[in-house]
Amino acid sequence: MEPRSPKISFTIMNELVLPNDTNTLNNLMGGRLLHWMDIAAAISAQKHCNSIVVTASVDNVSFKNPIKLGDVVSIEAKVTRAFNTSVEVRMDVWAQNIPSGTKVKSNEAYYTFVALDANSKAVKVPELVPDTDEEQVLYEGALRRRQLRLILGGKMDPDDATELKALFFAAKQ
Amino acid sequence: MEPRSPKISFTIMNELVLPNDTNTLNNLMGGRLLHWMDIAAAISAQKHCNSIVVTASVDNVSFKNPIKLGDVVSIEAKVTRAFNTSVEVRMDVWAQNIPSGTKVKSNEAYYTFVALDANSKAVKVPELVPDTDEEQVLYEGALRRRQLRLILGGKMDPDDATELKALFFAAKQ
Amino acid sequence: MEPRSPKISFTIMNELVLPNDTNTLNNLMGGRLLHWMDIAAAISAQKHCNSIVVTASVDNVSFKNPIKLGDVVSIEAKVTRAFNTSVEVRMDVWAQNIPSGTKVKSNEAYYTFVALDANSKAVKVPELVPDTDEEQVLYEGALRRRQLRLILGGKMDPDDATELKALFFAAKQ
Amino acid sequence: MEPRSPKISFTIMNELVLPNDTNTLNNLMGGRLLHWMDIAAAISAQKHCNSIVVTASVDNVSFKNPIKLGDVVSIEAKVTRAFNTSVEVRMDVWAQNIPSGTKVKSNEAYYTFVALDANSKAVKVPELVPDTDEEQVLYEGALRRRQLRLILGGKMDPDDATELKALFFAAKQ
Amino acid sequence: MEPRSPKISFTIMNELVLPNDTNTLNNLMGGRLLHWMDIAAAISAQKHCNSIVVTASVDNVSFKNPIKLGDVVSIEAKVTRAFNTSVEVRMDVWAQNIPSGTKVKSNEAYYTFVALDANSKAVKVPELVPDTDEEQVLYEGALRRRQLRLILGGKMDPDDATELKALFFAAKQ
Amino acid sequence: MEPRSPKISFTIMNELVLPNDTNTLNNLMGGRLLHWMDIAAAISAQKHCNSIVVTASVDNVSFKNPIKLGDVVSIEAKVTRAFNTSVEVRMDVWAQNIPSGTKVKSNEAYYTFVALDANSKAVKVPELVPDTDEEQVLYEGALRRRQLRLILGGKMDPDDATELKALFFAAKQ
Repeated sequence: MEPRSPKISFTIMNELVLPNDTNTLNNLMGGRLLHWMDIAAAISAQKHCNSIVVTASVDNVSFKNPIKLGDVVSIEAKVTRAFNTSVEVRMDVWAQNIPSGTKVKSNEAYYTFVALDANSKAVKVPELVPDTDEEQVLYEGALRRRQLRLILGGKMDPDDATELKALFFAAKQ
Repeated sequence: MEPRSPKISFTIMNELVLPNDTNTLNNLMGGRLLHWMDIAAAISAQKHCNSIVVTASVDNVSFKNPIKLGDVVSIEAKVTRAFNTSVEVRMDVWAQNIPSGTKVKSNEAYYTFVALDANSKAVKVPELVPDTDEEQVLYEGALRRRQLRLILGGKMDPDDATELKALFFAAKQ
Repeated sequence: MEPRSPKISFTIMNELVLPNDTNTLNNLMGGRLLHWMDIAAAISAQKHCNSIVVTASVDNVSFKNPIKLGDVVSIEAKVTRAFNTSVEVRMDVWAQNIPSGTKVKSNEAYYTFVALDANSKAVKVPELVPDTDEEQVLYEGALRRRQLRLILGGKMDPDDATELKALFFAAKQ
Repeated sequence: MEPRSPKISFTIMNELVLPNDTNTLNNLMGGRLLHWMDIAAAISAQKHCNSIVVTASVDNVSFKNPIKLGDVVSIEAKVTRAFNTSVEVRMDVWAQNIPSGTKVKSNEAYYTFVALDANSKAVKVPELVPDTDEEQVLYEGALRRRQLRLILGGKMDPDDATELKALFFAAKQ
Repeated sequence: MEPRSPKISFTIMNELVLPNDTNTLNNLMGGRLLHWMDIAAAISAQKHCNSIVVTASVDNVSFKNPIKLGDVVSIEAKVTRAFNTSVEVRMDVWAQNIPSGTKVKSNEAYYTFVALDANSKAVKVPELVPDTDEEQVLYEGALRRRQLRLILGGKMDPDDATELKALFFAAKQ
Repeated sequence: MEPRSPKISFTIMNELVLPNDTNTLNNLMGGRLLHWMDIAAAISAQKHCNSIVVTASVDNVSFKNPIKLGDVVSIEAKVTRAFNTSVEVRMDVWAQNIPSGTKVKSNEAYYTFVALDANSKAVKVPELVPDTDEEQVLYEGALRRRQLRLILGGKMDPDDATELKALFFAAKQ
């Protein structure tokens, strides 16, 4: 399998916030946005892996600003790093109110996906090779984020998380 | 405001996995589950706060086992701790295939919500007082999870996260 | 097949009333509630029968109070009695407006379900044995309600409906 | 207010059974059909009343034959009788599999609706005057069905239900 | 195959405009109406062909008047002409606001469908024979509309579109 | 108002074909695609106009190849020309089956939108100035397509459609 560029998995999704997506304050509900992000990220992961993918995990997501009824939600997704049978996808999410000309960053997020064959067996995925400096930073951070997932899932001893320690306690080392 | 017991916010939600909730392998899509969890947790947070709530963040969620078309998803939610104008809600999620008699834990998760008044201003929420030992453990862990959210959101210096350090590097201290 | 307690089929469902569930007065539409009740009752019936079930009938349902956008609908369902290949499920339905602290009974209802195997053939279901006095009353009433269904469906001569007569004309006998 | 003919409220609705409307046997779920029937009957009631209407009750409904994915459900609704501020609507429901040329009666049902003004106050509705013999039979039966609803709702003493007694125990009187 | 009358394919669909069908001005979105029209027309085409059908094309559709939340959309569809393995369906669409007693024509439209067997192969369809003068006019116009579709799809040289020329440039010939 | 480049309105939308979007052959229904295209085109039109827009018309659309369950539908939209208070939007639509590596053009289409202010009054829109040769061709063709819409809507005499005549009967002039 040829290594692949992040360009291959780059995916844009635009959704219009309709009444059923909102709460009684006319704001987009967080769960609806998480659902759209899952579909956008799954399309991106599929493009890198050329296979069916299923969501394995969602990292911490924070919602900073309310998104209103009638806004356009724009999601940009691309794969940051491939592991053995899985990939990490980063998303940048904006909310635009086009008639009033506003566009604000809503959040950034990381979802991971496992690639499956038609019998639901995990399959190997191509490596990712970053093209730009920004993609290199994302590629390196993917290891730390993976360690945090493993610790939070009880599958790694915090002492072995050397990458993560460097993130949290850089000043001391 | 009287402090409140976790019993008050305890909420059960059961959903049937229908075709539109599934991918081409007939498995529940992760984003659909995150959406249901958001609604269940919001109902739980409303019960504690007696106010409108909006999703502030979702912690790391891992999906271990595929959930199939026709399964029943059961979500149990309750508030673990109240902060100034926000609460943390823990959920336990199971998938049941009733005709075949199987019931497996799908995942555990934490969502946080901010309480708002009718003008979308954040309002103070009642304290939570744990009743059981298990609730006490969740109550104490809420502080560590909050520190992790703040660090991941760039709002806290890792060195100040004393609770979190204790979690990660217990053996060394 | 072992007889089963009503506890086994006890099911709670909570749903948030969203814009698309409402009419132009912002009230929950009756048909949407009947749909949620069907899913809650089907889950309850599945739990008793350990099989796929299909809706056979819905008894008279009255809607007393309007349920508003943003309210939480809580449905509690349990099996009241098993017949040969079918069960009767009773539901109690409440509407809560959590921010304003109101909770009102919306209605009570009975749905019946037939248990099917994977080839859509009706299969025998376990008996139900009531645990409490209240469940005993529901168990006995199930026979009268069944007679009423049979008469309304043209499958029983009213003169043979001895249980039902006792309900309607108790004072005269 | 001029009395009105049943023709004025006659309403036809055709719906295609899509995947999300079905259970794991690929049959239309009963609750989904009840929901469509509510919308068809509400349109019919609106046409008679020329006002907003809300569902007040659903009579006993039996589902005889499974309706399959891809079938067309046809609902014909018309008002059978007007009471003070409410109307009874009768529906005849068929399921058609057009490619195979089958069309079977699924069920008949009665829903009642209350007419409301823009402030949600009940308003008087025009009388209904039957045109045909069949409509005359439905008009007369509406009184018996109303008595049964009142008894089942605990609002009428069975002994006062003279119309209903005539239905159930005709041979004895 | 016996030729068939337009009566056989006549289909009525009534839909209630719900919040999720509307934009931020509370008007029905054009795309939602196009979707309902596709289902109504497909049912009509199925009735003529007695087979599965798939949408082949949609002619120019203009939306004249806004349709509001709470309005009832009525679609009347019937086949105007059969070609070898396809049919043209004409629809008349009205919007009614029943409480205020208004009913306005929204638009007229033509969709075409190809008839398929269970292996997705196109199959011959019965001829259509018009009954009324109005149906005869629609039947004749179908040929011109077909030529326009073929030209717009790049499958016919405009010079060969003799029927269409007669429509556009009648005065000159 | 400054004239605007087509770049400003360029919009990409990706949607995953889910079960409820498909017919009994597991193909995307035409009406569902028309609905997605309406939302994508409306977002594009909003970006050019910086105002609310409503769909005014849809040009002839042909569906060439079936799109399957699980495919990704990609829609690229941009404004081709602005008229007084309306814009024409062109879309290119592809269907991708990512696991099998196929991507086929589904169709091209033109929708027009009217720009409205908050009181639903039509408002003037900025002019569009093409940047590339391809955009120049689309810009010029917009006038012919507009004439065809006007003729089909009965608002223009075919003899006055000088642009359209040039398209249809070029060889003769």
